[in-house]
Order: sequence, then C-alpha cells, then structure tokens
Amino acid sequence: MRTREVRLVRRPAGTLRPTDLEVVEVDVPRLADGQVLVATSHHSVDAAVRLRMDPVSPPGYLPAFGLGEGIEGLAVGTVLESRAAGFVAGDLVQHARGFREIAVVDATAGALGGAGALTRLDAALAPAEVHLGLLGGTGLTAWSGIVPVARAVEGETVWVSAAAGAVGSVAGQLARSRGCRVVGSAGGPEKVAYLRDELGFDAAFDHREGVAEGLAAAAPDGIDVYFDNVGGGHLVAALDHLRPFGRAALCGAVAGYDGTPAPGIDNLFLATSKNLTLRGFRAGAFAERADEVRVELAALWRAGRMRLDTATYDGLEQAPQAVVDLLTGRTRGKCMVVTG
Amino acid sequence: MRTREVRLVRRPAGTLRPTDLEVVEVDVPRLADGQVLVATSHHSVDAAVRLRMDPVSPPGYLPAFGLGEGIEGLAVGTVLESRAAGFVAGDLVQHARGFREIAVVDATAGALGGAGALTRLDAALAPAEVHLGLLGGTGLTAWSGIVPVARAVEGETVWVSAAAGAVGSVAGQLARSRGCRVVGSAGGPEKVAYLRDELGFDAAFDHREGVAEGLAAAAPDGIDVYFDNVGGGHLVAALDHLRPFGRAALCGAVAGYDGTPAPGIDNLFLATSKNLTLRGFRAGAFAERADEVRVELAALWRAGRMRLDTATYDGLEQAPQAVVDLLTGRTRGKCMVVTG
Repeated sequence: MRTREVRLVRRPAGTLRPTDLEVVEVDVPRLADGQVLVATSHHSVDAAVRLRMDPVSPPGYLPAFGLGEGIEGLAVGTVLESRAAGFVAGDLVQHARGFREIAVVDATAGALGGAGALTRLDAALAPAEVHLGLLGGTGLTAWSGIVPVARAVEGETVWVSAAAGAVGSVAGQLARSRGCRVVGSAGGPEKVAYLRDELGFDAAFDHREGVAEGLAAAAPDGIDVYFDNVGGGHLVAALDHLRPFGRAALCGAVAGYDGTPAPGIDNLFLATSKNLTLRGFRAGAFAERADEVRVELAALWRAGRMRLDTATYDGLEQAPQAVVDLLTGRTRGKCMVVTG
Repeated sequence: MRTREVRLVRRPAGTLRPTDLEVVEVDVPRLADGQVLVATSHHSVDAAVRLRMDPVSPPGYLPAFGLGEGIEGLAVGTVLESRAAGFVAGDLVQHARGFREIAVVDATAGALGGAGALTRLDAALAPAEVHLGLLGGTGLTAWSGIVPVARAVEGETVWVSAAAGAVGSVAGQLARSRGCRVVGSAGGPEKVAYLRDELGFDAAFDHREGVAEGLAAAAPDGIDVYFDNVGGGHLVAALDHLRPFGRAALCGAVAGYDGTPAPGIDNLFLATSKNLTLRGFRAGAFAERADEVRVELAALWRAGRMRLDTATYDGLEQAPQAVVDLLTGRTRGKCMVVTG
C-alpha cells in the first residue's frame, strides 16, 4: 500500500519556507503486533512543529526530525485495521503520527509531549475537527494554562497573546467563562475585530501598533494573569504590567521559533519586586486530566459559549504552506490540514 | 538631642562609591504619641538598599531615598523612651530606621517591604546580632525561598548563588537541614572553601571561573531548585541546568543593582519546554509566618546546625564602606554596622 507524507528536505535557514518541506509518496510499512493502521483525516498544525526542524530540539521535546524524513504532529483519523488490543477498525482515534495520509501507529507509544498517545475518541460527542482542536491538545493546553498553571479566578484581568490563534482563542474564552476580564492581542486590525466582536473578548489590541501601549490602554489598572504564546517583547510588557502577586503562564514563545531569536528578557527583576510567578508548562504535564477537561470544554461548546474556528487546508500537498502560514501569523483559529 | 545619620549626597552614577554617602550630625526630632525612641546597636547592610538610591525605586519597594536625605534599613536596638502602647524603655526591638544612631520610630509604620514593622524581640532567645541576621529579615528571606516558594524537598539538588552572603548561607544550610544536596557558588577560592569546609555545603564553585562550567561539574545530573540572588548569567545557567519540573526562587538580582545592567535572559523558553516555575518573592509576602520561622531557625542555631557569620563594621562612619563592600562582594555572611 502507498501513501503520502510530508518530509523535511532542508533545515530552515532562519524562517521556514514551503520548499523546506516536500510531500512524497512512500510505502506503508506492514502492520506489526501492537499497532493500528489509521486513515488520518485531520492533521493539527502547531507552532511547536517548527522546533523539531532545527538540528536539535529543545529539552523536553521529542527529538529533531531527521533530514529527509517525515515530520509528525497530532492528528485524528479512523482505524482501518488493528493488531492492538482495545482498538478495532472504524474507531475514531487521536494519534501523534500526523502529516501522512495513512499511518502505522504504535498503540502504546507515539506520545507527543505526553499528550499524544493513541486514544480512542467518542465520535458521538463531536466531529473529528472538534476533537482535534477544542477537545484535543489545543483545549488541554489552553485549560492547563488558565486553570492549574495561572489559577485565574473570577474578577481578575487576564491578557492572552496570539489570542486569535487556536490555543489563545480557547484560553481567552475559557477565562471569560470563569468570570475574568479578558484582554487579547493579535497581529492586525482584522484579528483584533475578530477577538472583540466574534469571540467576545472584553478588550483587544494590535501588537503591531506597540505592545506596551496597547496593553496599557486595554488594561489601564494592570493585569493579574498573562497567558504567553509569544515570549520576547510581549513577556517584557507583561512583566511591566502585572500587578503584585500576578502570574504568567508560559505556554510558548513563537517569537523565537522561526528564524530570528527573540530579544532577551531584561526586566525579570520585576518578578522579585512584585512577587510574580512565571510558570512554564506543556500540556503533557496535565495529560491525566484530559478526560475531565474534554467534558468541561465540550459542555461549553455545546452551550454555544466556546467556539474554535478552523483555518483548513485541503489536501496534504497544502501542508507546507499551512505550516508557513501558521508561523507567520496568517491563520486564525485552529490551523489544520484535512485529507480524505 | 543630637545623633548621626547616613545620608545620600550623590546619586551613584553606575557603581556606588563611598563618597556618594556621608555621615552627618543631626537633631533628633521630639517624640510624638505613637512613637518610640531607639538607640540602635546593629544596622543591617542589605543589597536592596542600593535600589532606593536610584532616582526611582522598582515597583513594590519603598520610594527612592531623597537626595540629601537619610537612608534607611532594618536594624536592632534598645528602646530609650516610649510613647507607644506595648513598648517600654529597655525593650530590644527590630525596626526599619537603621543608619542613624538614635532613631524615632513609628510603632505602627516603618514597614520595609512588609517585614520591617517595629517588633519587640526576645532578648533571652539570642543576642542582638542574631536577631538582626538569622532571626530577622535575612532568615525570613532565606526560609521563604527554600520552603514556600521553591518547595525544596529531601533528596533534591539545590543550587544557591551568592552562597557566602547572608541570605545565601542561611538558605543553603536550611536546605541541607531538610535533606537536600546543596551546591553553592560564590566569588573567589576563599569563599568557595568557606562554603565547603565551614558551612558544610555538598559542593561549591567559583562563579568567576565560569558559571555554566562550575555548575555542570558540581551538579552533573542537573538541579531541582535554584535559589537566585544574582540574576543575569547565573539565572541563564540555572535555566539550562534545571531538571524537568524544577523551580527557581528569585530572591534578588544583585548583578543588576549597582551600575551595569545584567544581561537579558535569552533562554526563558526552557521554562516551557521543561515545565519550570520561576517565582519571584520578597520576604514581606511571608511576614505573617515570621514567628514560626524564628522558632525553626533558632532551634537549628542552638543545635549548632546553622551558623551565620558576621561581617561587622564598627561605628556609623564605616557604613558607606560597608555598603560598597557588600555590593562588590567583599563581605562574607551577614554584613552589619555596629554602633554604641
């Protein structure tokens, strides 16, 4: 059997170009005991995939992709054939071997940061794209940052950066559902209008017009929580604006992923002077709470209090452009490639 | 009545010089209701005093010292006269109006970061210098960082920077008393020998020989906790060496206090990738636990399991040099000026 996969054919020299990736046809390996064969329909496009394209991954991440080898990511699909206990043909599953149309997946492995083990999904609960986004790694990441990491509580002011992105838009809406006042930032006036008018953020600003100025105008009395997807100058501004005993949930630092290193943080002493906590986290650390989170988010979604729009790319041949568009901030909501 | 006080006569242009401070004779104000008159015997010399010599203090600190006005700090002395309920002549007290021989102190105010309110001390428990150091702000700061902030537990590896200083030497010994393996760093071979041979640290290294190299040799398997007194390159090295789920207690960043700004932190993304927590703190945030801490530290001290050596300067006229020596790393243990 043949399939297609996305390969890394050139390590990006700075910013990723679509031609650094290539879609190639390959043989599907024979299924061994303990494995399932999955026809993947939805492939998650996450900024973190860029980290594995450098020669060495950051500590805590899966190893760098080999040059000339296939890339991977979280994905949802349907089991075609199973040689693993607990899975049968027809099951809707999440796995970590995205970016190939037909994947052989180890039932006991494939964990991507602890959150990517092969998991059977409840097809009656929601469609595949909702499982991949809101109810998958995106939702778990957003929930982890707002709830156990930042401990945002009713009445607090929360700033979410990259708020029109998948994790950011869920984090912001989740904080609102818990009674926080939520400020979002994004790049460009269209995204800002989207945050305010469609996602119901209390305030929003365009970081391209100046992060410190935008934040000061949107939250003149300061912030209690910062949900950081960007790092660099955004985090510097957050440290300046956090109130005493404020918390920053460090979810990602996309400013430094793709080419240019982000500027260093030169005002971290404010953490001491204002009793601030900065806590880095990855969703995998909270994987044991994924079921509970799925229930909370699905309830909000069914009640119409949570939405996660999708930026959909049809066909695996669109995957290289999808990754580039995500990294350069051209997408909104959950970016995914749909196949089959 | 006349007394002498230390005044800021020139805002330091970069590194503080002794001549930026001056010891002058002044009138002691008349005592008003709610005040006590204290003959101060021991004046604490802390790095944080430098922060109030710049034109603007960092947020969370008391305002900058006025140019031509007296400076202040934590101190211990004996009440000469009281017009405040709860205090009588002869009481041993801690207050926040140090750097003057005779001080008028408001019984209800004078809090320095919340930890400096006028407090009666138990003279039978320990001598004045032990109250000022181990049982005062120094001990509370060290305890706060190790216990509630970093939550260091038995079997973990803890790195303490500026470990031959007052807070560092108490933090390191406290972590050891709780079953941690403790690595200390300091400037120069004498301090390193002091940490290892006299304070009983498990390992020690000289940061002047290279922080990353010294840390890697002293803790080849990484660290679980970093107690940061320095900031800058020390914190960068800690982020590199912290193990997954490690914690950094950000107590101070003396590298950036006196003149040259410390380099920015350019590897904070490791907090995300390794699920690290960085928590800034000031002892004032834990002031309500000061009594409990005093009991624990006094017990260790009486049992001979905790020592805090003193770097003593005799006479208020030595105070300018004492502050400069502390900031340039020339002192060991608790730096104090003794008067009367």
